[in-house]
Amino acid sequence: MTLSMLELEGAAGGSRFPLAQVLDALPWNSDGLIAAIAQQHRSGEVLMLAWMNRQALDETLASGRVCYWSRSRQRLWRKGESSGHRQRLIEAHLDCDGDAVLLIVDQQGPACHTGRPTCFYNAIEEDQVHILTAPLKEPAA
Amino acid sequence: MTLSMLELEGAAGGSRFPLAQVLDALPWNSDGLIAAIAQQHRSGEVLMLAWMNRQALDETLASGRVCYWSRSRQRLWRKGESSGHRQRLIEAHLDCDGDAVLLIVDQQGPACHTGRPTCFYNAIEEDQVHILTAPLKEPAA
Repeated sequence: MTLSMLELEGAAGGSRFPLAQVLDALPWNSDGLIAAIAQQHRSGEVLMLAWMNRQALDETLASGRVCYWSRSRQRLWRKGESSGHRQRLIEAHLDCDGDAVLLIVDQQGPACHTGRPTCFYNAIEEDQVHILTAPLKEPAA
Repeated sequence: MTLSMLELEGAAGGSRFPLAQVLDALPWNSDGLIAAIAQQHRSGEVLMLAWMNRQALDETLASGRVCYWSRSRQRLWRKGESSGHRQRLIEAHLDCDGDAVLLIVDQQGPACHTGRPTCFYNAIEEDQVHILTAPLKEPAA
């Protein structure tokens, strides 16, 4: 049996579908990826946007530890593998057309590679960008 | 003067940069787009993931009403233009590498085209996908 995301769009609240069939139906992009948003549980802070291929999503769901696909390194990227700043998966929700997944996580340490708590520290304020937080190491004075 | 996102990564907390120079430095993808995450202010609920080109982002910042780029229709998509379910922009934050923007919004009505409050209604639970909420019109019985 083949599912389509359109069937899920019309599905009644409370209905359930087999996960494997839904994953087969996702519209992975030309690089085989979907977008993944990580959000801190409880606080609701949006931490980062990254990408997942099928293997990364499968591993994340199986292990409970978030694994992305690194587009720059072209390999699986187990978040925190070098920094120790891991993400424990709490919930995962696919969007209506299946090209994005929202990961509710418990982030250990800062989420951003700059050492900031979240990657979204560049606030647009009128005609300026305001850097809200300091990197882990301030530039030398 | 030309800025790079790397300069912003190393910038001290509280520092400020000209918006126009930052927008010129964004690594728009091969389609000229960056990812845009809409999050409801106060509740923190993540509503949707969509895309923006430079024109959509400029218009959003100028008008305070969120405008995306529709990849399926290949045109500017002023959120709510047909449904009335507009998004008023409250804050906009760019991420560390500049290929994503977090929009804190005030969503009028449901964010999802299915009539659900958020697009992320497909919860992955063990080996099933659980449809958390009903579409605006339930399928006929």
